[in-house]
Amino acid sequence: MGHLIYAYRGDEARRILSSARDGRALGVYFIGSTRTSTIPGISVAGATPELTLYTPAVDAEYLFYGRPLSSDRIPVTPEGIPTPALITRAALDSSNIPSIVVDAGSHVEPKIPHVDLPSRVVGERIDLGRALPYDAARSLFEENRALADELARLAELIILGESIPGGTTTALGILVALGYEAWGMVSSAAPENPRELKREIVKRGLVRSGDLPSRDPFRAVARLGDPVHVSMAGFLAGAVERDARIILAGGTQMAAVLAVAKHAEVSFEGRVLVGTTRWLLSDNSSDLVGLVRMIYPSAPIIAYNLDFSNAPHEGLRYYERGYVKEGVGAGGTCIAAAVRGVVDQKLLHSIYEEYEKLISKST
Amino acid sequence: MGHLIYAYRGDEARRILSSARDGRALGVYFIGSTRTSTIPGISVAGATPELTLYTPAVDAEYLFYGRPLSSDRIPVTPEGIPTPALITRAALDSSNIPSIVVDAGSHVEPKIPHVDLPSRVVGERIDLGRALPYDAARSLFEENRALADELARLAELIILGESIPGGTTTALGILVALGYEAWGMVSSAAPENPRELKREIVKRGLVRSGDLPSRDPFRAVARLGDPVHVSMAGFLAGAVERDARIILAGGTQMAAVLAVAKHAEVSFEGRVLVGTTRWLLSDNSSDLVGLVRMIYPSAPIIAYNLDFSNAPHEGLRYYERGYVKEGVGAGGTCIAAAVRGVVDQKLLHSIYEEYEKLISKST
Repeated sequence: MGHLIYAYRGDEARRILSSARDGRALGVYFIGSTRTSTIPGISVAGATPELTLYTPAVDAEYLFYGRPLSSDRIPVTPEGIPTPALITRAALDSSNIPSIVVDAGSHVEPKIPHVDLPSRVVGERIDLGRALPYDAARSLFEENRALADELARLAELIILGESIPGGTTTALGILVALGYEAWGMVSSAAPENPRELKREIVKRGLVRSGDLPSRDPFRAVARLGDPVHVSMAGFLAGAVERDARIILAGGTQMAAVLAVAKHAEVSFEGRVLVGTTRWLLSDNSSDLVGLVRMIYPSAPIIAYNLDFSNAPHEGLRYYERGYVKEGVGAGGTCIAAAVRGVVDQKLLHSIYEEYEKLISKST
Repeated sequence: MGHLIYAYRGDEARRILSSARDGRALGVYFIGSTRTSTIPGISVAGATPELTLYTPAVDAEYLFYGRPLSSDRIPVTPEGIPTPALITRAALDSSNIPSIVVDAGSHVEPKIPHVDLPSRVVGERIDLGRALPYDAARSLFEENRALADELARLAELIILGESIPGGTTTALGILVALGYEAWGMVSSAAPENPRELKREIVKRGLVRSGDLPSRDPFRAVARLGDPVHVSMAGFLAGAVERDARIILAGGTQMAAVLAVAKHAEVSFEGRVLVGTTRWLLSDNSSDLVGLVRMIYPSAPIIAYNLDFSNAPHEGLRYYERGYVKEGVGAGGTCIAAAVRGVVDQKLLHSIYEEYEKLISKST
């Protein structure tokens, strides 16, 4: 697996992956919205701030069926760069790993069979300091824990990914609400990380909430969080209780998942790693390794060394210039595909093919 | 497995079960409503005809969490006999088989994590001859086929059960709509099967629909069916395409699932069996074996020989007098538990324990 970059605690990462090599794998992708993404300048996960509210559902539809249903095209950045869901879809397809989408609170219900959570809720703008009801935060955790208690009996290796525009900002919110000095450490899908704007929004939320920081993860989520990260933490809790191995598939947002799980007193040592992309790791505007060291220093980090320098399509070559970087579990799903024996050339081929299908459909 | 009754094509049944013995198993339970159940005299799957609309959601909640959420008690017949979901829950629990609920159109959304289908719809009274939109019938089939294409990669043996009050009447409707002479052959959860009333309702629907019989399974479902049976047929289609083995867990309604799958040109020879209870098999008012012979003669039938004659609770002893008989995949789930090595004594013990938990909660 020459295309894996062992960025942090490599031996532990190898141990976790090899213990899950022969079993089954399952990808679980969490979607949800936070109105934080509609604040101009925060999110490029959509052609306009308002369209970011559609991105989770359309990502899910594309992942499942290979075509958007709630929109006439797949999510793109304002520059027209396509969603990383295409990488995820290609990785699942080439490795024959099945997947399921969990709706934690998407503004639009995805038009695919998906898992619905009774407590799903769209998150409010976190600068208001009231992102979701406290009970919803707690219930989302418990509902996902119960869901994982069922599903994790079916697979040894579980990939947890997400689609929530504005997610790096709410991740920062959760970390700060829990008392971590995470300022300036979270990433962005934009090449120019709007770090000052994120800081300002989180600071405003901190002041308005009035009862932070707190060691209670559900309070942190209820004030400055969103429905997705707490759901992933709950799923992680249930899955490790069933002894599954977990790839937290994402960038700096995964630090917020680790933090919520840790503060909910989930014990997951030796079972969970963060899996991301090289683009995310080499992002100078954020610090995934620093975040993990600060929050849960025993959790390893691996990146898949995707390289689109020679991609035949400009939309993909943009990734090499710092656009998008990660999302919808792209990096971690590529890692899982590699664990299942998919070689890099086959994966790249599958990604290019997906891209060509998209182009042929949209013209 | 001395508690299995090989009722029809026993050798084939043994072959199917033994090919799935060493793999994983998964229970998938479909819930949905048809307003047919509100016609007085049709359904006893609820204390009153109106309450039957709550039964699928509450069955699902009880199955998942062990307690009702959308009602203050679990579903009971007018006599107070508890839902067969308690047998299913005990069988899953004692065999460690995971499960998931699929909502095909429940009147009430279940308060558990569950799979939601975009085309879910509550079925109309079938005496009106317009049970659901044609497109919904077709889409429910396809959505479940796509769902199974994912989930069936995780398990070798899949149990498909259902909770839809009024389901034997809509099953009769589907069969008659497809041109089968099924009159008088479907069962009932009541000890006195209201066969004349069912015949009358289906006949009325036949006349009103005006374009039956038809060989098109989606037209049959759209006119005289419901959201559940077509969903199960679609799931069956996707699961056999992934080479899973299927227990169609239910009584005479499973004949409607076989019929829809057959007319949708699904090829499932050697992969599917009907799994039910002894009570259903020995019901003189219906004819499961006759139905299967007529519709899909190569499909085997097995029953689990549950015997509540010596049960410590009167609510269970009622089952020996022809009440309830089957439902929520009870028989087929017990069969799967037996395949996984759960002996009868352990299963009975687990059922009695479930019953005691219910009593202690409701007092």
